[in-house]
Amino acid sequence: MREIPGIPYTFKDTELLALALSHRSIGQINNERLEFLGDAILDFVVSASLFKLRTDNDEGDLSRLRARVVRGDTLAKLATSLKLGDYVKLGGGELKSGGFRRNSILADTLEAIFGAIYLDGGFEPCEKVIQHICDPVIAGLPDADELKDPKTRLQEWLQGRGYPLPDYSLLSENGPPHNKHFVVECVGEAAGIRVTGAGESRRKAEQAAATIALEMIAGRSKK
Amino acid sequence: MREIPGIPYTFKDTELLALALSHRSIGQINNERLEFLGDAILDFVVSASLFKLRTDNDEGDLSRLRARVVRGDTLAKLATSLKLGDYVKLGGGELKSGGFRRNSILADTLEAIFGAIYLDGGFEPCEKVIQHICDPVIAGLPDADELKDPKTRLQEWLQGRGYPLPDYSLLSENGPPHNKHFVVECVGEAAGIRVTGAGESRRKAEQAAATIALEMIAGRSKK
Repeated sequence: MREIPGIPYTFKDTELLALALSHRSIGQINNERLEFLGDAILDFVVSASLFKLRTDNDEGDLSRLRARVVRGDTLAKLATSLKLGDYVKLGGGELKSGGFRRNSILADTLEAIFGAIYLDGGFEPCEKVIQHICDPVIAGLPDADELKDPKTRLQEWLQGRGYPLPDYSLLSENGPPHNKHFVVECVGEAAGIRVTGAGESRRKAEQAAATIALEMIAGRSKK
Repeated sequence: MREIPGIPYTFKDTELLALALSHRSIGQINNERLEFLGDAILDFVVSASLFKLRTDNDEGDLSRLRARVVRGDTLAKLATSLKLGDYVKLGGGELKSGGFRRNSILADTLEAIFGAIYLDGGFEPCEKVIQHICDPVIAGLPDADELKDPKTRLQEWLQGRGYPLPDYSLLSENGPPHNKHFVVECVGEAAGIRVTGAGESRRKAEQAAATIALEMIAGRSKK
């Protein structure tokens, strides 16, 4: 096999493509080293695309945008749309695996294919393939602000209007160690914010409270 | 300025080099976006070099080896040997900073210069510069096993000989919150291991105990 439909590249060395499709469940000779290489070139090519496209975003925004493109979830969707599941070679135990496990295998295989293309054809052909596959994802990325966590967005909203930072305080912590439940209050007195949020960790409860505060702010501005 | 002595590249666009040398302390137009880009190309070029050079290492080893090359500490040493401190442009507050702060500024500036070279000259010239600067570091890397943390190495040593995993137990925890002192015992009964380690966190005390166990094992094999 020299090609995978949907990936615009023809391998000179068919063994490299075969290796890229070999999950570690089939044995010692597998695609994990290629995945290491492919992950690195993917990160760089996506970084360069974002750098050129998002001229108004700072390095923090660029990092968050990149993470959205290269995360396993996104790569698994791309791999699924390329039907990589039809080509990946799995050992006995993995053949039946579904769900998350399967998605992660597909995402890793896509990275390994990028690594194999780099070794087979060099940087530029590999860059073109990655751009071909990832540019639609990059084009569909949300505004960088939307990728910030709620606490950060609330803080920036308050600071932008000259308000002091909000206070988060723990109202309650209940439940056994493996099933805790936290309730946190978020207060921004000057901005008229006093809301509560709940979650399975203090951090999650704080983010939930910040989300509610942001929804409250958005609701006010619509009135 | 078109060149920095020790960095074998001549800039076509001198403003790109000037931007790469502009620390954020001098204002809004600074090198942080270039650092984002340079960090990504550095990671990739080092990954590719390690992939080709270390054919016997698995992806975990390659990750640890790469981390040793691209970490701030290593980059700061490289930047210092290139005398980047003579060229970097800092704002008032940062001019006097020394030690860790200064090292981190120099490391970031080196990454920004890589990013600027990529934008100015494209991938291959940038790859050559990174290889020129980093290959001596890569050539001097230790054996991949030495980069594993002591607990991992002890575990692998025991497993390799059919022994069960070691047990770590906390013997004592003393001191006020900002100055804790932990003592941990590491026991590998079947392998004749019973040692203690101390540190400012439980994790560090465990690693210290594992280090002592490894030293004991090494001492035995010399007899």
